[in-house]
Amino acid sequence: MAINHPSFGTLADGRIIIFDTTLRDGEQSPGFSMNLEEKLRMAEALHELGADVLEAGFAIASPGDFDSVQSIAKRFAKDGPVVASLSRANTADIMASAEATKLAARPRIHIVLATSDLHMRVKLRMTREEVLERITQSVTLARNHAADVEWSAEDGSRSDLEFLCRCVETAIKAGATTINIPDTVGYSLPADMGLIFSTLMNKVPGAEKVIFSTHNHNDLGLAVANTLAAIQAGARQVECTINGIGERAGNASLEEVAMALRTRQDALGVATGVTSQRILKTSKLLATITGFDVQPNKAIVGRNAFAHESGIHQDGVLKDASTYEIMTPESVGWTTNSIILGKHSGRAAFRDRLKTLGYEVGDNQLNDAFRRFKEVADRKKVVYDEDIAALVDDEVGRANERIRLTGLNVSTGMGTKPMATVALEIDGDRADGMATGDGGVDATFAAIRQAFPHEVTLKLYAVQAVTSGTDAQARVTVRLEEDGKLVDGQGADTDTIVASARAYVHALNKLLVKRQRTEPPVVLRA
Amino acid sequence: MAINHPSFGTLADGRIIIFDTTLRDGEQSPGFSMNLEEKLRMAEALHELGADVLEAGFAIASPGDFDSVQSIAKRFAKDGPVVASLSRANTADIMASAEATKLAARPRIHIVLATSDLHMRVKLRMTREEVLERITQSVTLARNHAADVEWSAEDGSRSDLEFLCRCVETAIKAGATTINIPDTVGYSLPADMGLIFSTLMNKVPGAEKVIFSTHNHNDLGLAVANTLAAIQAGARQVECTINGIGERAGNASLEEVAMALRTRQDALGVATGVTSQRILKTSKLLATITGFDVQPNKAIVGRNAFAHESGIHQDGVLKDASTYEIMTPESVGWTTNSIILGKHSGRAAFRDRLKTLGYEVGDNQLNDAFRRFKEVADRKKVVYDEDIAALVDDEVGRANERIRLTGLNVSTGMGTKPMATVALEIDGDRADGMATGDGGVDATFAAIRQAFPHEVTLKLYAVQAVTSGTDAQARVTVRLEEDGKLVDGQGADTDTIVASARAYVHALNKLLVKRQRTEPPVVLRA
Repeated sequence: MAINHPSFGTLADGRIIIFDTTLRDGEQSPGFSMNLEEKLRMAEALHELGADVLEAGFAIASPGDFDSVQSIAKRFAKDGPVVASLSRANTADIMASAEATKLAARPRIHIVLATSDLHMRVKLRMTREEVLERITQSVTLARNHAADVEWSAEDGSRSDLEFLCRCVETAIKAGATTINIPDTVGYSLPADMGLIFSTLMNKVPGAEKVIFSTHNHNDLGLAVANTLAAIQAGARQVECTINGIGERAGNASLEEVAMALRTRQDALGVATGVTSQRILKTSKLLATITGFDVQPNKAIVGRNAFAHESGIHQDGVLKDASTYEIMTPESVGWTTNSIILGKHSGRAAFRDRLKTLGYEVGDNQLNDAFRRFKEVADRKKVVYDEDIAALVDDEVGRANERIRLTGLNVSTGMGTKPMATVALEIDGDRADGMATGDGGVDATFAAIRQAFPHEVTLKLYAVQAVTSGTDAQARVTVRLEEDGKLVDGQGADTDTIVASARAYVHALNKLLVKRQRTEPPVVLRA
Repeated sequence: MAINHPSFGTLADGRIIIFDTTLRDGEQSPGFSMNLEEKLRMAEALHELGADVLEAGFAIASPGDFDSVQSIAKRFAKDGPVVASLSRANTADIMASAEATKLAARPRIHIVLATSDLHMRVKLRMTREEVLERITQSVTLARNHAADVEWSAEDGSRSDLEFLCRCVETAIKAGATTINIPDTVGYSLPADMGLIFSTLMNKVPGAEKVIFSTHNHNDLGLAVANTLAAIQAGARQVECTINGIGERAGNASLEEVAMALRTRQDALGVATGVTSQRILKTSKLLATITGFDVQPNKAIVGRNAFAHESGIHQDGVLKDASTYEIMTPESVGWTTNSIILGKHSGRAAFRDRLKTLGYEVGDNQLNDAFRRFKEVADRKKVVYDEDIAALVDDEVGRANERIRLTGLNVSTGMGTKPMATVALEIDGDRADGMATGDGGVDATFAAIRQAFPHEVTLKLYAVQAVTSGTDAQARVTVRLEEDGKLVDGQGADTDTIVASARAYVHALNKLLVKRQRTEPPVVLRA
């Protein structure tokens, strides 16, 4: 190809430019706004991940947006990714983008103008000729301020294809160096995308000098497929976001596109500059910043993406991971293949997990334990390691409840220090504790620590209400750590503080069992 | 087509069978297990949604699974969807499926056997000839117990296509009435799917007598696209799940497939029996049962799927919804187009929302309010109606804090009834309240109601800890309802009970402003 791009020079054959718009289209979706400091952290992570272009914001949208774009441009003043700012096709928007991005080593002004009949009529109230004229004016203005100018045909996929060709030709003539055809409303099928891109690239004079770009929304679940179809038709820039966030159903997810291109390089023959091992880390950073976790079954980065519960699958994975895994969990940053046991798990996976947990059991005991495991699994959604350990510990004797909570009194309020007294029974002997704390729960835990001195780290404290009222049963989970050993305790009560105390004592009892087990390891043999 | 299916008779041209496997492949993923009662509720909802086949479980997996399949079969003993049970290709599995489904009006035995070289070698340890023989045996056995037998080629998409043709031919000869080619590991591209199905349907003798089925996993984000590609090549059964749950990255999502087929009927020319207006309800039922919400940007059923935050988009939607919406929110069960305001919102959306909230403002006041709105929006992730009302209420005077919390004492514990005393200042006058309750928070709210009598419904009580320790700042949200008016109050403190009291009083103050406003409506004009 003869592309000589102002920011990328001569593009290597089959090299796909990753244009990340997490900070613009992603940030634009309800609940996903980020402040300046958060955007800078994401920008840093995206750079480390290997994104080629960062759309840092929509400079004119608000003073905060302008500052964010400018700060990200400053951060990449010497080198790093191209820094882009979105602009509508008017002078004020373009000048704001130019000003906000100019400190970047490689600034880009991104102009968007609708080209579908519906958008031109209803939203722009412009004729086709007016739109063409506006393209020339706006792209020319932008090129006066930046060598790297991207022009986007908003609602491009629903535009009259012949008119779209004229628009693209006009934008190229005015100096646009990247041409983006968004599927703004997530309406296209992969075949539509193929047709649009191949038509544009074959028909428009000058098409060979610019980079074509694809930008897909996931309203029908087709964003990744449309992206791949555009690439197969010649697009070389992909607009995407981490975790697929973005307007409505979001954008094509960067991690899915990157891993599809990598896993199916045999068929697609292209490559990105993404360091795939950083994908999970980047995804988790975004989730932390925005407060929205991806769902467990989110491809690549969801908690279950590499988890196999069913017996059939687990058996296969244990024999050869490639039976059910087309990429390794490690290649996208997971540290372990987290097989989670449940009622669909088979004997092989169960035995394997017991081994990992330090239990060696003979065939008869395995059969017994596996039968009880299936019973537990029928009742519980997920069987955690703790449950399995508890199951096998039954063999050793169920007399594990060494600490019992027999009394609790808590007072709290405004202007007084929260205070708690607890009464425990430890191996049958009474022990009392009294303590103050930052809140009622904190005071309660401190009082328990006084009655039964121990040093553990509280790793998790979570309250779940079963229904939405305050008179609902509260369920509390407490996770404690001691020397790398983790235990979860659960407690329930209509009073949250009482539920918390129960959960803490439950966790302590489990910890005592673990201590026993690691001192002289309990080995079960048939 | 000459298909005369035992369960569906002569299939109408372009009619797609929806085979829902939420209760089997979906339920099989870690954390998504359901108990019998939950499965029955889902089965009922799926039937109302219009699913044609329910895969009710994997009968031999556990006694609980068997019972679930049997109960669902019993439920649909007179009519309703086909009820299927999964079986590996052995006698015990098939007999369990036959037994569990036999009470259904239309039972189906579903047999799965791997056909890829990798799976045959590593997992089955069988030769190709052995696999062919096993297909004949197992399908024949199944047909002795059910007229409706589905045969699935596990890892079919990675199987040698010529061998796959022989397997399918063998299954058809033995009496299989549906042939399913799963993309078990989520590896295929849409073009692969097209090739596989068109080859099978064109080459295999007897192909015209059976229904071909597609079953896609979303590991590379392509499950929906692969499903559509299979349909375009002639497949007439789609295996999918609500919310796209399922092993690893899940299955093709029923709602995305159904709405893609409907929205793009122009290009695809097929139709399902899904009542789309029930989609959201079914999705929410599953989320409630499993405890896993879909992410906000989940297509069709996510909270943001029809929300437009950016000014450009909101402006367009207000002018004509079709500018940014390819299907109406109502068509999938949403009751309103929930435009959420944020910093990307434009003036038009802001003015529109003010109107909805009962404020009429002149241009000058709009400009002032819009400027302050942008400032708030730069700080907050989402600007809710309450925030906007508060913003405009500033004009009326910010002296809205009529109730102040001046004192609080709470005692709780084991064996004692939780008790709270509160002191309020109401319009400058002191009022005291004392009450007991089911927990400390419940007692506190009761005491507030005693000090300031009122009748409201508590709609939401939520605690968020900022970090994971118990000494963290707790943030509490309280949502109250009075005569259809909703207010949210927020409170923060290191003690959860104190934070709860603050949030409740905050909400009460907002309610008082609302009461004022609706009595003589406050109208602002320039």
